[in-house]
Amino acid sequence: MAAKKTSASATKTAAAKKDQETLAKINKLAQNALKSVKAGDNPALDIRIRALSNVSFNEKRRVIELGNKTQTREFFNVAMARKFMQMFLIADKCRELINADLTLTIRQMYYQSKHTIANSTENTFEDQSESDPIIEDLEVGIDALREELHLFANKRGLVAGPLVVNDAGDQIDLGQMGRGGWGIPSICEDGVLKFVRNKASFVLLVEKVAVWQRLNEDRFWQKNNCILMTSEGQAARGIRRLLQRFATELKLPVYVLVDNDPWGLYIYSVLKQGSINLAYESMRMAVPNIRFLGMSSLDYKKFNLSSAVQIKLNDEDIKRAQQMKAYPWFQDKKWQREIDELLHNKFKMEVDGFLTKSITFIAEEYIPKKLKDRDWLQ
Amino acid sequence: MAAKKTSASATKTAAAKKDQETLAKINKLAQNALKSVKAGDNPALDIRIRALSNVSFNEKRRVIELGNKTQTREFFNVAMARKFMQMFLIADKCRELINADLTLTIRQMYYQSKHTIANSTENTFEDQSESDPIIEDLEVGIDALREELHLFANKRGLVAGPLVVNDAGDQIDLGQMGRGGWGIPSICEDGVLKFVRNKASFVLLVEKVAVWQRLNEDRFWQKNNCILMTSEGQAARGIRRLLQRFATELKLPVYVLVDNDPWGLYIYSVLKQGSINLAYESMRMAVPNIRFLGMSSLDYKKFNLSSAVQIKLNDEDIKRAQQMKAYPWFQDKKWQREIDELLHNKFKMEVDGFLTKSITFIAEEYIPKKLKDRDWLQ
Repeated sequence: MAAKKTSASATKTAAAKKDQETLAKINKLAQNALKSVKAGDNPALDIRIRALSNVSFNEKRRVIELGNKTQTREFFNVAMARKFMQMFLIADKCRELINADLTLTIRQMYYQSKHTIANSTENTFEDQSESDPIIEDLEVGIDALREELHLFANKRGLVAGPLVVNDAGDQIDLGQMGRGGWGIPSICEDGVLKFVRNKASFVLLVEKVAVWQRLNEDRFWQKNNCILMTSEGQAARGIRRLLQRFATELKLPVYVLVDNDPWGLYIYSVLKQGSINLAYESMRMAVPNIRFLGMSSLDYKKFNLSSAVQIKLNDEDIKRAQQMKAYPWFQDKKWQREIDELLHNKFKMEVDGFLTKSITFIAEEYIPKKLKDRDWLQ
Repeated sequence: MAAKKTSASATKTAAAKKDQETLAKINKLAQNALKSVKAGDNPALDIRIRALSNVSFNEKRRVIELGNKTQTREFFNVAMARKFMQMFLIADKCRELINADLTLTIRQMYYQSKHTIANSTENTFEDQSESDPIIEDLEVGIDALREELHLFANKRGLVAGPLVVNDAGDQIDLGQMGRGGWGIPSICEDGVLKFVRNKASFVLLVEKVAVWQRLNEDRFWQKNNCILMTSEGQAARGIRRLLQRFATELKLPVYVLVDNDPWGLYIYSVLKQGSINLAYESMRMAVPNIRFLGMSSLDYKKFNLSSAVQIKLNDEDIKRAQQMKAYPWFQDKKWQREIDELLHNKFKMEVDGFLTKSITFIAEEYIPKKLKDRDWLQ
């Protein structure tokens, strides 16, 4: 009990320190604007542009990075005044959140910030598509991740394995989760989530919850001494941060098993080097060494799969695959071959398709063989 | 440790007994068909019709029930032979699953059963929309829930609260889940999931995971001594079964908090008395006493909400609301008033809309006041 209390209070202190830093950044933003107003100037903000034109792939670090091109947002400018006002509104609400030590989703923040401006019929925000980019602007503008602003995305994903964690003061044995697994929190920063004791020697992330269920039920993680996670589709930020911490703090190799389609490749790509839209967070989220275990387009022949697994590529799939073929981080010959084979096959496949072989094929043959043969892409 | 082992082995015995019963049902199905073949007859099955025409609302039990009208499926009939073959194929695969003590999702079962018939170009199944109804036919045909056939839907939902459970041999304290919660398994039958120790005095199920996150972070379940669940949308079967067990075995009142729209009403309606499509399972899933805590159409005026929470009803919403107004189980005056008010408002609302009041309004004012005033619908 004593150890637990200490850990909870240490957690509190680390989180409080980070909060003070973030508050200082918000205050600086406000004071600069105030200074301009007092000097009779036009208050303005420089925000780094979040678009393909200002994004580059850092070959050395192997992550997508945001460049230094900025756009200026001025208060006395008809086209910019609304966004200027919105950013200060969001910043103010974040300040309130931090002071109250509460967190909200970005949708909840939309509701918190939405109101009709006094003596007008104008709403501060019309819908969430207006508030989300403003939150991203604020993150880039003051260099604070949304987690530090006490905002979070919906949580998603489950985990099980021979690892004990301490989350918000609760000691949780991920090897004692039955068939359910532990829900991965939205915010997986060191301040709130601590690794207490790890016995796993690698991490396996699967895209689909159904695949996770089969593997968890087989106690795959126990037999193979690994941490078994599912992202339930595109990985939420909490999952990405957790994977990065597994890779860096626990020095575990991380493997990904997604469906064989452009969407699966994209899930892997974002885990590995970040996304174009949120390039400014890559350093905190990306796992450059993450390994693509499958499902590979070459697996169809390699494992002699039945034609029953084929799902015809649609036009959107083909377009997305061609886009990915052009990404700088997929220029390696092996990746080009992987994507070419997908286009050549003219079909995609789901990991569940291995069920056409046998019920235990994925757990007892496919994954072990891939690992043994070091048959993955990076 | 000893207690845990006993519990795990008792679990195994109960599950094994149920498996033997299900296997006997499958065998009987096969033997009847075989008898017809040997006698030179046309093998046929009588399956209860699963449609509105064969469904009724049992006023006394307050659940939707399947009637006794049947349709006959014959092997020597061009229109029926394919479905006849498919049903035996699925039944055979379920037999294999039970014997191997493994489970699959209905999508995975589709892959397991799909193959090209020898010496033809005909597939046993073209896609999952063919295999899903066959599974339902089999459930009704031999009177076994899909969980008993070792099939399950994707798992969904999270839970936290002052309850200790034993799942598949693991002892899990749902009051020690940090910010993550425990993932609710697909199959929540007594054979695998046992209640070890409960201190909660009621259950609150919220539709949205974001609302759950806010309430869990506030330790709402601790302050209010309740079990806090999220269904993450429409409740999966595991969640429905778990709620029923909370209501019957632990005698806990169950409250539901959904968004104020026809979809939220539908989620509540299915929890309460089952769905038309799966009426045959109502007795095992429905919670007739479940209470609709909100979000009510009347809450807009009652809690003096800002117009910022209004989301205009679309044509689909209006149509669905009118359909629900006609359901036999919504004929009570209070329900009619609730649905009329929704249509009269011409807008829907999200629970997150309470954020326009204050960050802690839901946890500290809305829910406590509703409970105190006994302000719910049933």
